[in-house]
Amino acid sequence: MTPTITAFESSPDRGQGLARDMRVRWALEEVGQPYDVRLVSFEAMKAAPHMALHPFGQIPTYEEGDLVLFESGAIILHIAERRPGLLPDEPKARSRAITWLFAALNTVEPPIVDRSMATLFDREKSWYAERLPMLDHQVRTRLDQLSARLGDADWLDGGFSAGDLMMVTVLRRLGSSGILDEYPALSAYIARGEARPAYQRAFADQRAVFAAASSRG
Amino acid sequence: MTPTITAFESSPDRGQGLARDMRVRWALEEVGQPYDVRLVSFEAMKAAPHMALHPFGQIPTYEEGDLVLFESGAIILHIAERRPGLLPDEPKARSRAITWLFAALNTVEPPIVDRSMATLFDREKSWYAERLPMLDHQVRTRLDQLSARLGDADWLDGGFSAGDLMMVTVLRRLGSSGILDEYPALSAYIARGEARPAYQRAFADQRAVFAAASSRG
Repeated sequence: MTPTITAFESSPDRGQGLARDMRVRWALEEVGQPYDVRLVSFEAMKAAPHMALHPFGQIPTYEEGDLVLFESGAIILHIAERRPGLLPDEPKARSRAITWLFAALNTVEPPIVDRSMATLFDREKSWYAERLPMLDHQVRTRLDQLSARLGDADWLDGGFSAGDLMMVTVLRRLGSSGILDEYPALSAYIARGEARPAYQRAFADQRAVFAAASSRG
Repeated sequence: MTPTITAFESSPDRGQGLARDMRVRWALEEVGQPYDVRLVSFEAMKAAPHMALHPFGQIPTYEEGDLVLFESGAIILHIAERRPGLLPDEPKARSRAITWLFAALNTVEPPIVDRSMATLFDREKSWYAERLPMLDHQVRTRLDQLSARLGDADWLDGGFSAGDLMMVTVLRRLGSSGILDEYPALSAYIARGEARPAYQRAFADQRAVFAAASSRG
């Protein structure tokens, strides 16, 4: 059964692949699972039909027959458990890969989102100039620790896993900040992720949505 | 093999059970898995031996033979997959319960932590009075949506699951804010979690650590 995911009809990132459907597209491409996409507007996202699928009114959702999931982490884990390619078979290595999936979402992403929200919405606030260095510091603390753990390895724990997929998409959200320039090992890690054929296909597909929306004006 | 978790030697919450070891203790109690606890000081948490277990220098960690995990979500999922009591057997219900585990950590907890960090560290800042209502609003948005989805059910999706366990511990972090008083259905939901015998045992055990530290002066 072909699953259907939801994505922004008009992504605020203008096709840079930073919205959370990109993670799910990439995971589906890694395991070779075809999928359909239903685009939702910002208004539709907060209306009853979508809220019935996603109680917090966000994208992506994942529908497979009568199963409805939300939360990119849960969707990726669901995909990874059903087809080979995103989790090791060995039970301990599998639990460690899942640990990185949670670490990307819960320890690395929150300070990155906090910083990104501040740069989007707080620029005119009286406190912006004082707060930004604090937010940068919180991001750098996590990147220092992550870079130390990665060392000169290609991936966080053995072969490429769902944990790396999530971490790469989380780190990409720092793109325009310039902070990643200070972390050559993490920049190379992101580039390894972006070079994967599955990533390339997913990126092209989400970008095509932006291009189509732009051509409609 | 008896697993060992780590917890704060001196918890900043003074025994209220808000530190993240509480979630793991509760999960272990729900499945009837005995465990050992190793207490770590704030200094030890950032030193090399602990950082080898937890790259971000936090608690809890989970050691079981040569397996080392971190991130409370990953640890609870690992426990829930190995013993009955925290996830339904039916595959779709199981994926939905895991969705709530991620939703608690990724959608509900971040605004709660942001608010709590501001009340702890930004009280003296010039922007505190202006930012607090914004932070409160972000918390209330999530609580409105969560309360709407819960409705008059006992748990988020059928029977009690790892998703409820995580959600209850996340909501408890709002304890002293007074915001939960506006949400009687969520308050009753938290109370149902706290009434579970496994919760009670876990709470007593973490509280004993605080009492012992206090008596040492």
